[in-house]
Amino acid sequence: MSRKISAVAAAISLLASSQVYAAPKNIIYMIGDGMGPAYTTAYRYYKDDKTTKVVEPTVFDSILVGMAHTYPDDNTVVTDSAAGATALSTAKKSYNGAIAVDTAKKPLKTMLQMAKEKGMTTALVATSQINHATPASFAAHNESRRNYDEIANDYVDVKIAGKLPVDLMLGGGTQYFIREDRNIVSEFKQAGYQYIDDLNDLNSLKSVPAIGLFAKKGMPHAIDESPLRLTNMTNKALDLLDQDKNKEGFFVMIEGSQIDWCGHANDIACAMKEMDDFAQSIELAKAYVDKNPDTLLVITADHSTGGLTLGADGDYKWERDVVANVKASVKTITQKLKDSKSLEKDWVALTGLEYTSEVAEELKEAKSEGDKALFKAINEQINEASYTGWTTGGHTAIDVQVFAHGKGREDFIGSQNNTQIAEKLISFIER
Amino acid sequence: MSRKISAVAAAISLLASSQVYAAPKNIIYMIGDGMGPAYTTAYRYYKDDKTTKVVEPTVFDSILVGMAHTYPDDNTVVTDSAAGATALSTAKKSYNGAIAVDTAKKPLKTMLQMAKEKGMTTALVATSQINHATPASFAAHNESRRNYDEIANDYVDVKIAGKLPVDLMLGGGTQYFIREDRNIVSEFKQAGYQYIDDLNDLNSLKSVPAIGLFAKKGMPHAIDESPLRLTNMTNKALDLLDQDKNKEGFFVMIEGSQIDWCGHANDIACAMKEMDDFAQSIELAKAYVDKNPDTLLVITADHSTGGLTLGADGDYKWERDVVANVKASVKTITQKLKDSKSLEKDWVALTGLEYTSEVAEELKEAKSEGDKALFKAINEQINEASYTGWTTGGHTAIDVQVFAHGKGREDFIGSQNNTQIAEKLISFIER
Repeated sequence: MSRKISAVAAAISLLASSQVYAAPKNIIYMIGDGMGPAYTTAYRYYKDDKTTKVVEPTVFDSILVGMAHTYPDDNTVVTDSAAGATALSTAKKSYNGAIAVDTAKKPLKTMLQMAKEKGMTTALVATSQINHATPASFAAHNESRRNYDEIANDYVDVKIAGKLPVDLMLGGGTQYFIREDRNIVSEFKQAGYQYIDDLNDLNSLKSVPAIGLFAKKGMPHAIDESPLRLTNMTNKALDLLDQDKNKEGFFVMIEGSQIDWCGHANDIACAMKEMDDFAQSIELAKAYVDKNPDTLLVITADHSTGGLTLGADGDYKWERDVVANVKASVKTITQKLKDSKSLEKDWVALTGLEYTSEVAEELKEAKSEGDKALFKAINEQINEASYTGWTTGGHTAIDVQVFAHGKGREDFIGSQNNTQIAEKLISFIER
Repeated sequence: MSRKISAVAAAISLLASSQVYAAPKNIIYMIGDGMGPAYTTAYRYYKDDKTTKVVEPTVFDSILVGMAHTYPDDNTVVTDSAAGATALSTAKKSYNGAIAVDTAKKPLKTMLQMAKEKGMTTALVATSQINHATPASFAAHNESRRNYDEIANDYVDVKIAGKLPVDLMLGGGTQYFIREDRNIVSEFKQAGYQYIDDLNDLNSLKSVPAIGLFAKKGMPHAIDESPLRLTNMTNKALDLLDQDKNKEGFFVMIEGSQIDWCGHANDIACAMKEMDDFAQSIELAKAYVDKNPDTLLVITADHSTGGLTLGADGDYKWERDVVANVKASVKTITQKLKDSKSLEKDWVALTGLEYTSEVAEELKEAKSEGDKALFKAINEQINEASYTGWTTGGHTAIDVQVFAHGKGREDFIGSQNNTQIAEKLISFIER
């Protein structure tokens, strides 16, 4: 690059190459629950084509713009998913456990509710139950994330300008929406929503309003069943929102819910398959933005989970092949080995690891001690073999990444508070 | 923000507010050795003014632009500081241990050498010995970082266009530069360099060329002695480089060397004081750029060290006050408690922690087992009390952050390979 490039030429080039700032019509907001920077890094090495010298960049690398601070408003420094989602949905920090309420437990208006007020079509997609902390913080208000029934009630009770707040919901949670005391699904149907409860019927959804609940609580882990269930739901949601042709545009929040759950379990293979489903969902969203340049895609995480590190115990390596060879979540492996008639055969088939005499001894001893010990023993073998480190079954306070693509992406460059992400999105919605 | 802002108005605003791309005259390159994203996050909470509701942003937050991938060229995924610095100085990945040589052990030209060829004034500043892996990879070539004497020799033997390559060096390392077999300091003096060996004499340096070596090997930890030694050296270096008024500009690499060393020791208070010295050095560099807008400041890390996490063992908190109250490195505390006549008094004075009966018992037992056990016991108390997690005494593979300020900063926005940072800087030097 020559110093002789004149300032004017450079300015013109910058102008031509940049997305010019202006409010986008549609907003796709994606949240990788628990997806700290170690997860996106791990995913790159996990997906690496080892036949090439370079480690190929991922979809995350193509749209990274900044990072975000996740601390809640209760002096703990470390947030939970409820306070994290509340900050990301309302631009206000609150206490751990809060679902779109402030520290005085008063309701905070969410960006999804603002979008509905503005006449935009609204949607929530998650692999958890759809009334779990993250999606809940966009459409409900509760002093505690644990009040699942009350939160589900809010999805029909908290109306916006007389209307139901969410036009499309895809995720899990039938046990909260079809209850003995109240059948919320029936209420949705009466309000004109199409309802399905089988992921294989996704294509039967023809228009919004619609609701799909595909599990009693959370959907199964990607590594155990339907590895691309978020990708498929994202595909359908974007299709329906696009076909809706609302001139006011749409707002959709899509959560990779279970990156966090695998992180809590310190289960690296489980986490990487969740990352893969989330990454492929992002690819679809990115392609939608490329076709519809009046759309903004913003992606972040609420916090990091597990204290994941690539490398552990003094060794300078991370064995991604070990991770890639694991065939089920540690939870599922535990169940299968518990009932196994050939521990060796099942061990090798499920973990891809050698069945050494040391492994045999540890597994047999753990089996005799019960499920928890067996789970721990399996996890330790995989983490040790892959040189994967963890420091907690909970969350950590490390800053998370911010990714953006499309109209308005420049606003998200740099280091920001998680509430500032919401402020910027709200300013677009409130245009 | 109204949607009605016209594209043209927005474009003009973008143009006016942006640094227009063009090659900078001066380059300030700062490397926080081991400074993964958990360190910059921790530093924000550590420095937080708790009397205010918000957690104040740090200097890092003001200039974050992206992240970098650190893997070396040997399939381990986890880099050491030598391969990391080689990538950052030559734009070529190599094997762990390599000092500016490729995988065939052939020398790779460094950006400092290129800068010297272009007639720029060159400088290296570090708190390690100045021939340690990171600074070494800018001015020497060796198949192993361990060959400290050979590396020191290179600083006078590897001439660029007949001249010594580095005009200003500040750091530690007398034992390698004044040896029985060769007195390199004498050679520098004969070549016209002013030489000092006392940090208090910094102000006696009036012009380049000059060299200051302030310790036999690395300088003491910031927490143990001279908490702002890097800041003071940075201040002097920028002064001398500015006064030099070289019309071709200058290139300086400034390393916060010991963030890594504290990380290896899993010593959080030590790491935070190193971060503070590095951050204050950055403040000076940033102010220099503000006064001299033809200067580019780029900051990154070679890797993250220790697998640091904020939060551990299932608890959702990180106790920054515990960290702030520690008065010495764990290494120094170990030495002091070893010789202590009042364990209780010294424990409270040095760590700020309560001297409970449990602590008393553990310390006494550890003392009887030797220095290593005592070090471990002290470290565990501080890490447990502060909810600080670590997974390794070595490095991890997490992506590191990239910070930039001044002319050309736009080029560093986003996710990039560490070699790409070097490529961009080299393109500016080779203008």
